[in-house]
Amino acid sequence: MKAVILFGHGARDARWREPFDRLADLWRAQHPGTPVQLAFLEMMTPSLEDAVSTLRAQGATQITVVPVFFGQGGHLRNDFPVLLEACQAKFPQIALSATNAVGEDLAVLQAIVDFSARAL
Amino acid sequence: MKAVILFGHGARDARWREPFDRLADLWRAQHPGTPVQLAFLEMMTPSLEDAVSTLRAQGATQITVVPVFFGQGGHLRNDFPVLLEACQAKFPQIALSATNAVGEDLAVLQAIVDFSARAL
Repeated sequence: MKAVILFGHGARDARWREPFDRLADLWRAQHPGTPVQLAFLEMMTPSLEDAVSTLRAQGATQITVVPVFFGQGGHLRNDFPVLLEACQAKFPQIALSATNAVGEDLAVLQAIVDFSARAL
Repeated sequence: MKAVILFGHGARDARWREPFDRLADLWRAQHPGTPVQLAFLEMMTPSLEDAVSTLRAQGATQITVVPVFFGQGGHLRNDFPVLLEACQAKFPQIALSATNAVGEDLAVLQAIVDFSARAL
């Protein structure tokens, strides 16, 4: 079974995660057959490893990790691949893969342009 | 004249800003009559103040600042309002306003859900 992890940076302020919770809710409403978990790099839980573990317990065999980041800086170029590799080593029975950062997607950027235009 | 500032966090890795440059390019192609500048909270230039100054020199009188952040944590709840107020005090002839973070926009979140679904 396929599953998705929406992977964010994390922040000290608990309210920072609100859009991530909304994202997961949207996913669940639109893709009820594909489990989703949030995971965070730092300052928030669950970790990537804990999210993989939860999805595995739900029967996931293929997990796509989506970095919900705009830019691909040190966190995504350096920290994230190490984390992903460590998870893959820990859960060899799961096929783990990752997408580009969502900020690389033209439709995401277009939605930001449209949001900005509506605000003028 | 109206203008827009796309305001991001900034990062040490210069490649992090690529989606921001693409955002500004998209804006310019679609809204050529409304100048746009990027600005960053830290680790990248220009600052918010420098971006306001540049747009003012281009004739802007009303500037909308769009925080290109997912969540609203300490940076947007604490640092950003102080920065915006300082800019407003420095440029009293400009009407400065700010939107919510783009991560609060349902269409932006939906674009992320769609990107994730296409990746499965």
